[in-house]
Amino acid sequence: MHITVARETSSAVPVAQVRIAGVLAPVVTPFDREFKPDAKRYIEHCNWLLANGIGLAPFGTNSEANSLTVDERVELLDLLLGSGVDPRRVMPGTGCCAIADTVRLSRHAVENGCAGVLMLPPFYYKQVTDEGLYRSFASVIDRVANDRLKIYLYHIPPVAQVGLSLALIERLLKSYPSAIAGIKDSSGDWNNTKQLLDAFGKSGFDVFVGSETLLLANMRNGGKGAISAMANVNPGGISSLYRHWQATDAEERQSVLDRYRKLFGQYPMIPALKRAVAHWARSEDWARVRPPLVELAGADAAALIDQLKAAGFDMAGR
Amino acid sequence: MHITVARETSSAVPVAQVRIAGVLAPVVTPFDREFKPDAKRYIEHCNWLLANGIGLAPFGTNSEANSLTVDERVELLDLLLGSGVDPRRVMPGTGCCAIADTVRLSRHAVENGCAGVLMLPPFYYKQVTDEGLYRSFASVIDRVANDRLKIYLYHIPPVAQVGLSLALIERLLKSYPSAIAGIKDSSGDWNNTKQLLDAFGKSGFDVFVGSETLLLANMRNGGKGAISAMANVNPGGISSLYRHWQATDAEERQSVLDRYRKLFGQYPMIPALKRAVAHWARSEDWARVRPPLVELAGADAAALIDQLKAAGFDMAGR
Repeated sequence: MHITVARETSSAVPVAQVRIAGVLAPVVTPFDREFKPDAKRYIEHCNWLLANGIGLAPFGTNSEANSLTVDERVELLDLLLGSGVDPRRVMPGTGCCAIADTVRLSRHAVENGCAGVLMLPPFYYKQVTDEGLYRSFASVIDRVANDRLKIYLYHIPPVAQVGLSLALIERLLKSYPSAIAGIKDSSGDWNNTKQLLDAFGKSGFDVFVGSETLLLANMRNGGKGAISAMANVNPGGISSLYRHWQATDAEERQSVLDRYRKLFGQYPMIPALKRAVAHWARSEDWARVRPPLVELAGADAAALIDQLKAAGFDMAGR
Repeated sequence: MHITVARETSSAVPVAQVRIAGVLAPVVTPFDREFKPDAKRYIEHCNWLLANGIGLAPFGTNSEANSLTVDERVELLDLLLGSGVDPRRVMPGTGCCAIADTVRLSRHAVENGCAGVLMLPPFYYKQVTDEGLYRSFASVIDRVANDRLKIYLYHIPPVAQVGLSLALIERLLKSYPSAIAGIKDSSGDWNNTKQLLDAFGKSGFDVFVGSETLLLANMRNGGKGAISAMANVNPGGISSLYRHWQATDAEERQSVLDRYRKLFGQYPMIPALKRAVAHWARSEDWARVRPPLVELAGADAAALIDQLKAAGFDMAGR
């Protein structure tokens, strides 16, 4: 595996802590004809991703996590880890609108040895205060009450519409330096990522970009990797840039990744990702999405696949 | 009670159907010191609301519904109805991000005889299509599969950020004329309410405004009432305007309601409502909110109560 780990040592805590770094995929979730999660296909896809050198971030935005019930998320993680996947390569999304749900999912992940959890803020109410968001995260940490908890804050204002300010992160880091491990910045705004790196990057706060289009910039500025939709379909290419970001051809590698992103970006991302998996895994079932999303079908589906092939895109071994 | 009911008859379905109308409160949810729902205080408050002539819309935006787990919502409704409250005066909110949760809550409500359910669209993904939203509601109706299901669509773009277009409503009404019973319009935009009334108001689609400030306008244009935050603290005043909207002093009554709304509107609405209940019910516990909300305290709390008293506001009998 090309997921790298860094070891922290501490005289107070004799257990070596492992920090995840590298490229992770917010794993797309396959549904069967009854629109139930299809564990067999899910585990197959996860193993293909792992074999291509990346880690797993199940239950992210691209996983349709919030279209799953809490029970479904618990069960699917149990099946995944039960299949033999190393939890140190897994960072499940756990942030829900209700704190009690976030606590339950986070506790479940940490008790199963996961590398960390990716945590959305509660996202129903808008224009909430930093004080309210601080209490949300603090309340989860206090209630999970497990020293091994590593939270990666999930900043995705275009979707959640509730963002995480630098002042909030600073306050959380001060109160919970061990639990607040980093962030996934899906703002799509490099200035924000740069500010995060400058403010907190040197104090054990790990910055992951939410798109591989910013992976090279992130690595050059002290970031730790990317947690990106496109890692579902191009894990090898993205993990290769991660490993070779200091190589002379890094910018060329980045531009290939950008080209593929552009092709997918012509369509709604989740349906497009699932369409590609459906094509290369030769399984129409993979194209299915839960409402309110709509699958990519017909002419759009055909056009995407044609364009990808013409651009030399492939999902080898899938 | 002043909740009025209209009877539908049908040769195919011999059971008389009851349609709820009037004023309903999205009931605020009290929490104990462990931030768990406090059923005793909740039922007390509900009974006071009912005694003041209004109906109950538990688990709305002002109920912090999305800060509750699905299990908490099921349990609280069971306790409420188990206490003897007439389910024909109750319209619980049931719309979640995950369709399976919406199905579970809607089925539970309809099987317990509730007048209807207030249904948010899935609200995590933004800029979703009408096709995707149509499938969301259709999927819930098909899976609940109960002729008694009456859905009141919940249109609240300022919070959910996912709105319900006229074209979507028209399509839903065509496919599900019995299940789609009406809407709560919390857009705050009278033009939108007027369009809804003009387009669908005469065909058995019941329009409730989401603020009592539009109650008189709604009634004058064929609407059915209001489901409003302020009904938690001024049920008598609002239900009185509903009953007397054709009286000569209706505009005067409306302006009193508007004045009270303005005083509460200086502060975040839910903390302000709970602060008022805490004061008049003489119970500090009522002021508590779940994160990401923050309770109204200190000088703001004192100022609100002082201003309310100075304006002649009272919660008699609370």
